[in-house]
Amino acid sequence: MKETEKFNLGESLPLTQVLDSLPYNSDGLIPAVSQQYDTGEVLMMAWMNRVALEETLQHNRVCYWSRSRQKLWRKGESSGQIQILKEMSFDCDGDTILLKVDQTGPACHTGRRSCFYNVVRGDRVEVASDVLIDPEQLYGK
Amino acid sequence: MKETEKFNLGESLPLTQVLDSLPYNSDGLIPAVSQQYDTGEVLMMAWMNRVALEETLQHNRVCYWSRSRQKLWRKGESSGQIQILKEMSFDCDGDTILLKVDQTGPACHTGRRSCFYNVVRGDRVEVASDVLIDPEQLYGK
Repeated sequence: MKETEKFNLGESLPLTQVLDSLPYNSDGLIPAVSQQYDTGEVLMMAWMNRVALEETLQHNRVCYWSRSRQKLWRKGESSGQIQILKEMSFDCDGDTILLKVDQTGPACHTGRRSCFYNVVRGDRVEVASDVLIDPEQLYGK
Repeated sequence: MKETEKFNLGESLPLTQVLDSLPYNSDGLIPAVSQQYDTGEVLMMAWMNRVALEETLQHNRVCYWSRSRQKLWRKGESSGQIQILKEMSFDCDGDTILLKVDQTGPACHTGRRSCFYNVVRGDRVEVASDVLIDPEQLYGK
């Protein structure tokens, strides 16, 4: 994204050109941070490849790449807790994606709203948010 | 952080135990997302190692690891645009850090407030925020 560093407000590049030139890592992936669009809460970090990016933009429903399952991960496909895309942006280096989303229920597989529930308090790390929905109920286990 | 998944609200682990067991990558690094603590704006993504984490917690001033310069990067040491740490949290897997900070001026090396200024609008990617301080002024070039 070096090209846009000196752009003025409102100047733009074609999306396909940007998607072609992103600095995907050796696995073809880029980290994506998701944030609830209206409250600003940071929900989770996951990974996207080119296909996941295009699918997300096409359907406005967030699709990641699951590194553990090595396949496209349509967020909410098992749990029903989907992310509707409100806005996608790239950082100055193009090596991180920010997704402003509308998250249904918990974003976290533990059933908590956000994955960032382990908060440093002095010399301890404390669980600072409660489970909204039992994961057994979310994943039918 | 698997241990805390089933913790109740307020249960905790010792910080040193958590820092010892984080899933640092092969370069000893973990991605850290920073967010302005009061407005919720996501500012940037950078990397921390164990030393950067400890220094940040000790001084409440954010220190990253610069992958390009291969040394500790005390945010703002050249530009004066520092990040005061308000809260640090780890996600469910412990593989991403969220830093709630108070950012002085621009977080981005381009002089923009946030690094995430390249916004997808239809089939274009548009620069959606203006430069606050000219980078030549920030870095004295």
